[in-house]
Amino acid sequence: MTGSGTTSYRRLGVAQRRAQLITAALGLFAQRPPEDVSLDDVAAAAQVSRPLVYRYFPGGKTQLYEAALRSAADELELCFAEPQTGPLTVRLAAALDRYLAFVDGHAAGFGALLQGGSVVETSRTGAIVDEVRRTAAGHILAHLQVPEPGVRLRMTVRTWIAAVEGASLTWLDEGKRPPVEELRDWLVDHFVALLITTAASDEQTARVTRAALALEPADGVVTRLVRRLGPVLAEAGHLL
Amino acid sequence: MTGSGTTSYRRLGVAQRRAQLITAALGLFAQRPPEDVSLDDVAAAAQVSRPLVYRYFPGGKTQLYEAALRSAADELELCFAEPQTGPLTVRLAAALDRYLAFVDGHAAGFGALLQGGSVVETSRTGAIVDEVRRTAAGHILAHLQVPEPGVRLRMTVRTWIAAVEGASLTWLDEGKRPPVEELRDWLVDHFVALLITTAASDEQTARVTRAALALEPADGVVTRLVRRLGPVLAEAGHLL
Repeated sequence: MTGSGTTSYRRLGVAQRRAQLITAALGLFAQRPPEDVSLDDVAAAAQVSRPLVYRYFPGGKTQLYEAALRSAADELELCFAEPQTGPLTVRLAAALDRYLAFVDGHAAGFGALLQGGSVVETSRTGAIVDEVRRTAAGHILAHLQVPEPGVRLRMTVRTWIAAVEGASLTWLDEGKRPPVEELRDWLVDHFVALLITTAASDEQTARVTRAALALEPADGVVTRLVRRLGPVLAEAGHLL
Repeated sequence: MTGSGTTSYRRLGVAQRRAQLITAALGLFAQRPPEDVSLDDVAAAAQVSRPLVYRYFPGGKTQLYEAALRSAADELELCFAEPQTGPLTVRLAAALDRYLAFVDGHAAGFGALLQGGSVVETSRTGAIVDEVRRTAAGHILAHLQVPEPGVRLRMTVRTWIAAVEGASLTWLDEGKRPPVEELRDWLVDHFVALLITTAASDEQTARVTRAALALEPADGVVTRLVRRLGPVLAEAGHLL
């Protein structure tokens, strides 16, 4: 191992070396909160010397953390890309599968970052996280085919994204329960419910919702949700 | 002004002086993010000298910020207390009115804290914010009368709380639009929709939801929501 490590040490170019250090750091941040990861740990994981880590990241752990976060944000934003065809709930489920796999794979770092109060947090890390949220919102609005979303629709999409983040943190906190497929289905149901609820008091959202529902298949997610609501609402006849 | 300031300077006891400095700090944090508030600003707002601020908060701005946050958290937790009588949606609306008034009154500080990346953020400030969330969740579960909530119900409540935070930040971001009453009504609708949606796939939540719906009046929030859904779902007959 040491032999092959030394070989790769010599052969890597600047960009590759940088990427290797970031990958090593991401691996550690996935397992432990950033404050429990030292540059020595990163050097050991990448099988290089501490001075080499400092040569690439002279700003130390903060700079390395920002670079790792930048890299993770790029990866996360790729999760959101989904062709604009087929039922909206199917597209949403596909994007959520990738997002939740990311959360699963970066558990500790994801939690530390979003929970705040981490020693390596800076205004730049905050801006990166915010950019990911904005990108996610942009994707959803594009799928809803709304070139000029009003305040209520923007708020609906951003609120659901906050809910997904909150649910993901709770999921990690609860030892990854319920099973990830159940979480994904529930988050899709939640999106449908929130969109329909907002449609009840906002005309633009109502138009978007009608168009989205028209694309849903008769035996799909929305039908299943509506059918399962029967027993819940059976005794609430006085409200209907 | 200076004369009366000097008089109050002499007369205040330790606890009162501490409270006065925290109130002055909260006033400034409400208008500007913490990084733009100096101890000189706090001293000027409280009409005292900078050394006096340091005597009470030898840890400087971080300590003062933590104390201000602690005080704000205590105030916020008082918002959640609501008698356990009447329809759940009415109780929720009353608590949300107080919470949103708090958000409105502490705009800059609230935003800075929850958006993260603030220079004064520490693991202690993160713990205080987390405690407020846990307290809010505890209140809601108590109102739902669930002594032993399962993972799905816990996740539902915590996810809605994350959604409320996200919506509040978006509301500040959008220049406090839509009007606060509209935001409150929408958040109540959102809670009802999320509870019913979760009830569709979780037996405990279904029991709780049936009991909550039984207490709702025929001309209340839930009925209005259901009625307004008619036109949205009119063209989605193939799903029902």
